[in-house]
Amino acid sequence: MNVTTFGLISIGVAIASFVFAGWLYSWVKKQPSSNVKIAEVGKLIRQGAALFLNKEYKVLARFSAVVALLILLFLPQPIWKGNILENVIMAIAYILGTVFSGIAGKIGIQVATIANVKAAEAAKEGIKPSFMAGFRGGAVMGMAVVGSSLLGVAAVLLATNNTTALLGFSFGASSMALFAKAGGGIFTKTADISADLVGKVELGIPEDDPRNPAVIADNVGDNVGDVAGMGADLFDSNVASMAAALVMASALDKGTNGTTFQSMVFCYAALGLLASIIGVGFARIGKNGSPTKALNNSTYITTGIYIVLTALATLAFGFEWRIWGACVVGLVVGVIIGIATDYFTDDSKKPVHYVAKASNSGPAFTILSGISYGMLSVLPAMIGIAVAALASYKLCEDINPMFGISMAAVGMLSIVGMIISNDAYGPIVDNARGLAEMGDLGDKVLEITDELDSAGNTVKAVTKGFAIAAAGLTVIALLGAFKSEVLTAQAELNLAKFTEESLNFAIIDPLVFFGLLIGAAIPLVFSAMLMLGVDRNAQRMVAEIHRQFKEIVGLKEGKEGVKPEYDKCIEIATTGALKELIPAGLVAIIATLLVGFIGGVRAIGGFLTGNIVSGLLFALFMSNAGGLWDNAKKYVESGHEGGKGSVAHKAAVVGDTVGDPFKDTAGPSINTQITVCSLVASLLSTLFLTMSIF
Amino acid sequence: MNVTTFGLISIGVAIASFVFAGWLYSWVKKQPSSNVKIAEVGKLIRQGAALFLNKEYKVLARFSAVVALLILLFLPQPIWKGNILENVIMAIAYILGTVFSGIAGKIGIQVATIANVKAAEAAKEGIKPSFMAGFRGGAVMGMAVVGSSLLGVAAVLLATNNTTALLGFSFGASSMALFAKAGGGIFTKTADISADLVGKVELGIPEDDPRNPAVIADNVGDNVGDVAGMGADLFDSNVASMAAALVMASALDKGTNGTTFQSMVFCYAALGLLASIIGVGFARIGKNGSPTKALNNSTYITTGIYIVLTALATLAFGFEWRIWGACVVGLVVGVIIGIATDYFTDDSKKPVHYVAKASNSGPAFTILSGISYGMLSVLPAMIGIAVAALASYKLCEDINPMFGISMAAVGMLSIVGMIISNDAYGPIVDNARGLAEMGDLGDKVLEITDELDSAGNTVKAVTKGFAIAAAGLTVIALLGAFKSEVLTAQAELNLAKFTEESLNFAIIDPLVFFGLLIGAAIPLVFSAMLMLGVDRNAQRMVAEIHRQFKEIVGLKEGKEGVKPEYDKCIEIATTGALKELIPAGLVAIIATLLVGFIGGVRAIGGFLTGNIVSGLLFALFMSNAGGLWDNAKKYVESGHEGGKGSVAHKAAVVGDTVGDPFKDTAGPSINTQITVCSLVASLLSTLFLTMSIF
Repeated sequence: MNVTTFGLISIGVAIASFVFAGWLYSWVKKQPSSNVKIAEVGKLIRQGAALFLNKEYKVLARFSAVVALLILLFLPQPIWKGNILENVIMAIAYILGTVFSGIAGKIGIQVATIANVKAAEAAKEGIKPSFMAGFRGGAVMGMAVVGSSLLGVAAVLLATNNTTALLGFSFGASSMALFAKAGGGIFTKTADISADLVGKVELGIPEDDPRNPAVIADNVGDNVGDVAGMGADLFDSNVASMAAALVMASALDKGTNGTTFQSMVFCYAALGLLASIIGVGFARIGKNGSPTKALNNSTYITTGIYIVLTALATLAFGFEWRIWGACVVGLVVGVIIGIATDYFTDDSKKPVHYVAKASNSGPAFTILSGISYGMLSVLPAMIGIAVAALASYKLCEDINPMFGISMAAVGMLSIVGMIISNDAYGPIVDNARGLAEMGDLGDKVLEITDELDSAGNTVKAVTKGFAIAAAGLTVIALLGAFKSEVLTAQAELNLAKFTEESLNFAIIDPLVFFGLLIGAAIPLVFSAMLMLGVDRNAQRMVAEIHRQFKEIVGLKEGKEGVKPEYDKCIEIATTGALKELIPAGLVAIIATLLVGFIGGVRAIGGFLTGNIVSGLLFALFMSNAGGLWDNAKKYVESGHEGGKGSVAHKAAVVGDTVGDPFKDTAGPSINTQITVCSLVASLLSTLFLTMSIF
Repeated sequence: MNVTTFGLISIGVAIASFVFAGWLYSWVKKQPSSNVKIAEVGKLIRQGAALFLNKEYKVLARFSAVVALLILLFLPQPIWKGNILENVIMAIAYILGTVFSGIAGKIGIQVATIANVKAAEAAKEGIKPSFMAGFRGGAVMGMAVVGSSLLGVAAVLLATNNTTALLGFSFGASSMALFAKAGGGIFTKTADISADLVGKVELGIPEDDPRNPAVIADNVGDNVGDVAGMGADLFDSNVASMAAALVMASALDKGTNGTTFQSMVFCYAALGLLASIIGVGFARIGKNGSPTKALNNSTYITTGIYIVLTALATLAFGFEWRIWGACVVGLVVGVIIGIATDYFTDDSKKPVHYVAKASNSGPAFTILSGISYGMLSVLPAMIGIAVAALASYKLCEDINPMFGISMAAVGMLSIVGMIISNDAYGPIVDNARGLAEMGDLGDKVLEITDELDSAGNTVKAVTKGFAIAAAGLTVIALLGAFKSEVLTAQAELNLAKFTEESLNFAIIDPLVFFGLLIGAAIPLVFSAMLMLGVDRNAQRMVAEIHRQFKEIVGLKEGKEGVKPEYDKCIEIATTGALKELIPAGLVAIIATLLVGFIGGVRAIGGFLTGNIVSGLLFALFMSNAGGLWDNAKKYVESGHEGGKGSVAHKAAVVGDTVGDPFKDTAGPSINTQITVCSLVASLLSTLFLTMSIF
């Protein structure tokens, strides 16, 4: 069997995942819903999310058109130098990347904004039906994302037989992720912070009070940031890991007159999706079971199924066991990192208790202790990634060591369908909680939705650690892809500028070191710009909320029939998010271009490395500290350290507010930033090779 | 003229600096002081500082004895394999390093705790005499530190003619710095936070109220953290930069049958000290002049003098102009980094205003905006270091490029005498302010000491940026020294394990990458442990303060003659600081050993690089964010955004409390941590070479 067969099989599995997603979707739709108030608010949320997506896609379309034009003119080579057809293919692949990711996001949002209503109503019947509605709603997103990424990659490769085009597709996915994840992250935190500042702090009204003009924007935010954004982020990582592996596999296959290595990539990726389908299908919760356990068990089951399936395939098709080993190492390490990360955010463990206790001395101590534990939390993940990289490299040393690392990344991301399902579950049940409150479904229902929500938070921390680690391995693999691209370009141009060894990027090479230092600074600058963007945007929104409370008669008093202008707030959050995002994205891209055109490919090698290392540190630190503060607040609210209204609670709320943009805007967006820089570098490798100053 | 002559000249200049320091000391002592109350409190501070130093030196002595014994047994080679004499020399050099640094610290503290009293009293006469007392007091420390470091390095090299012994001396200095800087940093913030928590927050008494049992500890803290600690830190960096340069210079000289390169190192270092002596001697302030300007002008003048003097020397002795160029590049970039860093903490610039304004929305926004600007602030310094490294490398490419970088570090640190003088001025006038308050010297005097104090804060931010950048360049040079050591060891052992090129540390080498990821995590773990240490220690001290207020009758009411037990608080701060520091230091050292014995010298190359890059990022981020919060609070207190007592002020105080351990404990201690790891690696290079798993 050759790569075409495996590519077609992959497409088949992808289609199966769509069919499965369709079944899940209709199941969710069939669940009962009767409450008029909930239906009304649910509709507002759905419309708001659609408003954001449409606006975002419009801006993205313009942005992509410009980028596609630039690609057409310059990549992989300036149009007047190279083969025009290649440029056309690249531009089309790029656009396909944005479109495929966009469709998956649209589907995910669509079902998530139905599932939230269903989960809220189902909570009246107990935890089991509510859990299933939330989980299966999230699973639609998981299936859509992984199905469309596998479909896209397989289709592009089979149609073009050109791995560089895959990088174009991957870059399209990255552009989309930049808008969806970073833009969505700014949106969601703008709305969250503004709603809290005016509602909870100034007026003292409850969190999801419908009088608050920002309340719908806040609920929309959960969906656009955590569902669509996270989906686009993992679509991006997943595509990038496959692209990096396929670039190197194709180079390996060239020597062998076969397509074994490319076949393996498809085979393992398709089996990952299959394992996820099975895992999702069998996910269940007991009548009074723990939702956290149910979610985690599905992950472990999927992992087990994947290992067995790939082992059988490796045996059946006579694949190389060492590469299978790299794959499994990646996956197992990913799960371990997830569990280790959980320690720092779990509300039954020491860090959360410590931060809650420190809060008794005031907010400064909430912050200091949270930052300290956030910093400590990077260690297990860094060790895990280091060990996974070293082990997979050593395993595949005689084949192509960087290919080994890329397969570890593919392995780590293999069960991403399951991961996304778990992750999208979170915002759905979070929304369901808000809807239950707005629909006055009573305390018993709120208790259930609270428990489901809390499970969502815990699982989210685990999946975030997983996602960041996977992105880390992927970009390490992209470094290998970059080297591969440079050598190929050099050969095509008949240049002999670099030996293979000189592209191993020696740290003592001053150009590499130069790039390293600058690359390391970029994630900090990028995060800071996003956080300042949230701050500025929140100021605009607060002004709008103030205006509405002042101008709309009877709103503050909650007069019957008086409604705030929810759409104005959504409008502000949307416009502001896109406006604040673009400069941050451009800084990252321009820095890559500057370093590349000044220092050449060796400086880029250093730049990407610095970017990866510092990006991993800050992504882990910010995500974990944010999750820790969130759970410390919830821990205090559940009655510890004085409970609600105590000194500790006030301090914990400050921690949570700081943590919000940490964990939902800046932290996870760094993933996307490093992938974008890596892909820009790979795509421009020919230009950097021929046109740099040094 | 050969290296012996230049070494002797260096010793001569060092002695001249001691004579000058003696003159400054006697000048300070001669200044009038008459206020009994101030004298009494001053004495308490002096005694408290002595108590800390004695205790610290005792712990350090035991620690050093153990390390010296280990050195004797194992370094540079296990005693049963190598030349015993070399081990003895190394152990003695190590002890000398701790002793020289200790003496300089002791002298500095001695004069600082006299100068604070003098500066307080002189403020009655106006800004000019008060400034001079503070500045000249600080300058004694500057002269003592640089004089003794130059003397030590020259004496060790002339006596042993063995550059590896220099690394031993340097490691001694690092051990001292670890205790003085990190230990002092924990001490000072323990006292500061505890004093504020009980005094300002709980009881509402003023900052320097003598009823507060922690008030003397707080004043002692300024001296042990900022004077002794900072001095030991820069002693360490200065010695390390010279040692790294001399290690490589000696390798270069081997080929030439001369000693030119080593001579240059001494010549340029001695001229730096000379320039600082002149700069300090001519430092003046007009009758109503700005102290900030006076301090900055001295720095610029010293820089100018240094450039001229070294140019003349290069001409006179026929030195290599390109190396002079590297030296000047380092110095100029250092000054530029200092100025750029200033932007982020200066209270007339946007970041401080932005943070102050954001504080109106509550502490979460103080923290978020401060963290964001702190993250942005790393960019100029990272670019500066990258450019300095690249430029000095390229300049000296044909000589020995890493030697070029080490000379840039020597250049950047050349005016360190001046830098320390400016820096030590800060805590002296800060103390003077407290004394003036406790001695009831009146509002006019407080106004003057406030202005002097504020200048101290501004200058401190600049010098911190400078110190971190210099440490960065130094450790890059140490990476070169490490390579040099490995190659030398290999040659001596007749091994051929590594080619010269394979020790350039290729990022794509999995062992290098493995080390890189783990090394990058260490500064975060180290900082977090120190900050948690401050937290724990402050809890102990708060308990003690509570006890005193409860048990000592009449203390709270301020009854005549009733005094708190100041020494108990000092005792707690001291014991706790040393106890909390040791695990953090051990983690860094053990991580180095683990990576070295597992991954060997290539993994260590990656480890040191990751350590440097992430260390620079976090040191800059934490120091600058801390300085920014401090100044934002002062800016609000001076009447902006509602002034004292406003919402913004309360929030700004939270920012300042978070910033304190950032800027005075964790941030600047990272310097020391990376130097310690670098030196451990260099010293153990032979062992890593012969005994690693991979």
